[in-house]
Amino acid sequence: MAFPVRTCALVGRFADPRIAETVGALLPHLHGRGVTVLVADDAALPLGAAVTRTPEAQFGARADLVIAVGGDGTLLHAARLVARHGVPLLGVNRGRVGFLTDVLPQDMLPSVDAALTGELTVDERPLLSARLVNAKGAVAEALALNDVVMQKHDSGRTLDFETRVDGRFVNFHGGDGIIIASATGSTAYALSCGGPIIEPHLPVLVLAPICAHTLSNRPIVVSSASLIEVALQERSDTQAHVSCDGVVLGEFAPHDRLEVRTAKECVTLLHPPGHDYYKLLRSKLHWGRGALER
Amino acid sequence: MAFPVRTCALVGRFADPRIAETVGALLPHLHGRGVTVLVADDAALPLGAAVTRTPEAQFGARADLVIAVGGDGTLLHAARLVARHGVPLLGVNRGRVGFLTDVLPQDMLPSVDAALTGELTVDERPLLSARLVNAKGAVAEALALNDVVMQKHDSGRTLDFETRVDGRFVNFHGGDGIIIASATGSTAYALSCGGPIIEPHLPVLVLAPICAHTLSNRPIVVSSASLIEVALQERSDTQAHVSCDGVVLGEFAPHDRLEVRTAKECVTLLHPPGHDYYKLLRSKLHWGRGALER
Amino acid sequence: MAFPVRTCALVGRFADPRIAETVGALLPHLHGRGVTVLVADDAALPLGAAVTRTPEAQFGARADLVIAVGGDGTLLHAARLVARHGVPLLGVNRGRVGFLTDVLPQDMLPSVDAALTGELTVDERPLLSARLVNAKGAVAEALALNDVVMQKHDSGRTLDFETRVDGRFVNFHGGDGIIIASATGSTAYALSCGGPIIEPHLPVLVLAPICAHTLSNRPIVVSSASLIEVALQERSDTQAHVSCDGVVLGEFAPHDRLEVRTAKECVTLLHPPGHDYYKLLRSKLHWGRGALER
Amino acid sequence: MAFPVRTCALVGRFADPRIAETVGALLPHLHGRGVTVLVADDAALPLGAAVTRTPEAQFGARADLVIAVGGDGTLLHAARLVARHGVPLLGVNRGRVGFLTDVLPQDMLPSVDAALTGELTVDERPLLSARLVNAKGAVAEALALNDVVMQKHDSGRTLDFETRVDGRFVNFHGGDGIIIASATGSTAYALSCGGPIIEPHLPVLVLAPICAHTLSNRPIVVSSASLIEVALQERSDTQAHVSCDGVVLGEFAPHDRLEVRTAKECVTLLHPPGHDYYKLLRSKLHWGRGALER
Repeated sequence: MAFPVRTCALVGRFADPRIAETVGALLPHLHGRGVTVLVADDAALPLGAAVTRTPEAQFGARADLVIAVGGDGTLLHAARLVARHGVPLLGVNRGRVGFLTDVLPQDMLPSVDAALTGELTVDERPLLSARLVNAKGAVAEALALNDVVMQKHDSGRTLDFETRVDGRFVNFHGGDGIIIASATGSTAYALSCGGPIIEPHLPVLVLAPICAHTLSNRPIVVSSASLIEVALQERSDTQAHVSCDGVVLGEFAPHDRLEVRTAKECVTLLHPPGHDYYKLLRSKLHWGRGALER
Repeated sequence: MAFPVRTCALVGRFADPRIAETVGALLPHLHGRGVTVLVADDAALPLGAAVTRTPEAQFGARADLVIAVGGDGTLLHAARLVARHGVPLLGVNRGRVGFLTDVLPQDMLPSVDAALTGELTVDERPLLSARLVNAKGAVAEALALNDVVMQKHDSGRTLDFETRVDGRFVNFHGGDGIIIASATGSTAYALSCGGPIIEPHLPVLVLAPICAHTLSNRPIVVSSASLIEVALQERSDTQAHVSCDGVVLGEFAPHDRLEVRTAKECVTLLHPPGHDYYKLLRSKLHWGRGALER
Repeated sequence: MAFPVRTCALVGRFADPRIAETVGALLPHLHGRGVTVLVADDAALPLGAAVTRTPEAQFGARADLVIAVGGDGTLLHAARLVARHGVPLLGVNRGRVGFLTDVLPQDMLPSVDAALTGELTVDERPLLSARLVNAKGAVAEALALNDVVMQKHDSGRTLDFETRVDGRFVNFHGGDGIIIASATGSTAYALSCGGPIIEPHLPVLVLAPICAHTLSNRPIVVSSASLIEVALQERSDTQAHVSCDGVVLGEFAPHDRLEVRTAKECVTLLHPPGHDYYKLLRSKLHWGRGALER
Repeated sequence: MAFPVRTCALVGRFADPRIAETVGALLPHLHGRGVTVLVADDAALPLGAAVTRTPEAQFGARADLVIAVGGDGTLLHAARLVARHGVPLLGVNRGRVGFLTDVLPQDMLPSVDAALTGELTVDERPLLSARLVNAKGAVAEALALNDVVMQKHDSGRTLDFETRVDGRFVNFHGGDGIIIASATGSTAYALSCGGPIIEPHLPVLVLAPICAHTLSNRPIVVSSASLIEVALQERSDTQAHVSCDGVVLGEFAPHDRLEVRTAKECVTLLHPPGHDYYKLLRSKLHWGRGALER
């Protein structure tokens, strides 16, 4: 990371009025600090905005900091843009904290100032690397912060597939698919599929089947040093694809192979002082005293 | 039902060698009983087979009995063909009983004889009626024995939708979709999504969310006399469809409305003597003494 | 029910300051309406309070109305007192609605007035009847509004037991016990054990295993006209008991038999205008739009 | 470990005829190998059996090897006896493998021979250390291989309690209790409470609430280097105790504190060649191809 920050990229759905309002307060503040602000070529910002329009693909090379304004989905998008460049990310949410975007609008300006001068807590989160190899040897690859998902699509028919961990056969599965989530992603899609909450810095992954036929087919926690492999069984009506953090990587056919491992790259999240993972959980999951009174 | 049975339709994936073997034993037996056998126009049967090739759509009008050879999916297909005609169904499975196909190959011939003479247990199962109304008023309709499912497809993005029961607002949901299952269908897809097992003759339905964001968004059991309505929230990236027993009925867009109610029609299943729902459950779900030893 | 109400019993943990405050507002109001107020002999109320101290066991015979002030546990206690007498119950909660106590303190006085003159919505809820028969023929019996529970106690060892529905064998279970819940009780203990939400007027019960060894041992919805039987397997270290709405009915040993069926008696709940079951669910289970933003 | 083994302790419920039969084959075999066999003082063995009766408490100091014959419960008992002495354990099951007792009777004699000469696979499993501190400072301590459980007993009333990880507040819980399981214990009680399967050598623990009121109160995976603390909220009707691997350690009252951490000691399991954790899972959890045909 380079401090003080001279160039900052802004990521968000600026057409959303709530986001626009937040950005409207943020831009003059950054300007006043002498920071150059990059936004995407096609960003829905007013014409006169004091920003430099740049292809998103260059954010990684040019920005010292990325500020994602919106929900966790926006931060995941920003993370993909800069994952290979080590640019730190600050996530500002729209009224409620997210698992990844934990700065509230009212705390934004002091948090941004602290980010500009390198005073925020640095939180390195490992990425997953997905590799989709088809029968002809062609390869598609992508990184994911939360999860790599192999899932049925289009048809209503379920999938038959098998999983391996470090070459060892784990199981034949029948169901809608499987999630391979990082510890960070354990509170995203995997949680909806019965997976556990995993403290984000533990060296583990979780394999969570999606709507498994076999009810004992429970989520499995494995080492983050493991190679996970998924292959489809041959069936005439199979339609599946692989997605990384919700973005489709490609079709997945019988005889294709999906490989997932921990990437060498990390994402660097910045947190305001007092960041507390369990406080975040309590807020996001509606835990607390009130809930006890049944 | 007309007895004795003079015309019997056979349904199955005859290209599967295990199915073909079963059918190979069944055809001469039916022939010997003087029964005319209907199969689909394009059925993968040997040329010389003593069968009458007929469009499947005519099975309902022409057959006195349908024998489905295969898994529960095959019986669901057969049920759709004859649902509006009240033709009884006998399901022969391929080695393991299914929830709907509970005659084993070795018991097939005596069961068929009993079916021909009307001696089997008759089991009427109500159907669900799905009605998909789009913003322009166009309507698609279908029946389902197990379930009507509204579900995301293609993209990895989840859906925001709302449900109503008899006009009363139930919930805003975020997740992959929702299953409206009959009591019969409670042991199919809904079970994989955390739904309960429901005795098949109870006058109830179950609404089971698929991979709900909110963990307290549990399956709800409602009256089978209720009208269930589902509507999507507007979101730019929404891609959803509705399927009935796994067959896609149509795309489902914001401003469309899905209505599900119990149909007037029933499906008539025939069971061999000694049919026992709980025995079937124990077998299908691997319950039993052995499982206790942990 | 007798209207206008002349005698009203008050039930609650009056030693709790929040309850005492509510009762402090309620007593003069009832007095002003000319209503005689019964409280338990040992009620923790100030000496000068204008109440008639009466054994709780006489509330059923003497009161025209019971007001339960507190949580659902308080209303369950009140329901046991009057179940055999058909006295209606009004439940006032302490700041948050409960499933059974749905009048908030701020709405209490108008709701009480409406209850006194018979203007509230009447909601009849069937009770469960539990019968515990030991090997020597001795019998213990009780009613329950929410659930009858057979559960291990004391030792850490799990139980082996079997269940029957209308004499048909259902399953051998291994685990911590089983809940037989009414539709009303589906949102109480059974929900914590993976059971479904059941609309309270449906003619069904749910059998929900507690921490079952076998993961496919899912909750089962059966007819409320059914007789449910539970028996323990012989094991040297078995320690189990049966409770009704959380109150222990008795020890449960191998060779004992628990029978649960729907009772002839109902509990009559009174609801304020606008009572909406789904609104209650949304509030209690933290459903809603906000929950969608992940 | 000392090889060759000269003294071997046998642990099991010898009164069970299936266990007695296995032991009947084992004793002469060990005798023939010149091994002294220790059994408990009160072991239910025939009078003439060629064994040395010894208090179980001395097994740890005197035996070079312990053979547990029975289920996983028997091996857990044996593990407690020798945990502080590093004596290796071989588990022989009675017909079906357990998670810990993975030698089948028919493979017993060659496995025992291999154990005697140190040829089996050595599998070190960390233990949990539980420390129960009451308000007066008195302390009870025990080790556990699978889990430490704090749980209600006797009454039907649930518990209100709070948890901390390394001093950080995690949550207020309402429910039946909580399981702190090792990775090894993830497939025992914690699995019945919705916990994940965890590969046994990962440096993590799982905190699994038992029948939590709040449905989003999901199992949490934390570092095995963490200190877990549990404390009860004050409530008049609280009755709780703590157990280690199913053996009660003591009562647990408000103002008491339960501390759980990874112990310095390990248990040494011996496995036959070809031991495969995932094969064990597939067998124990009824996974597999057959299960797919729904």
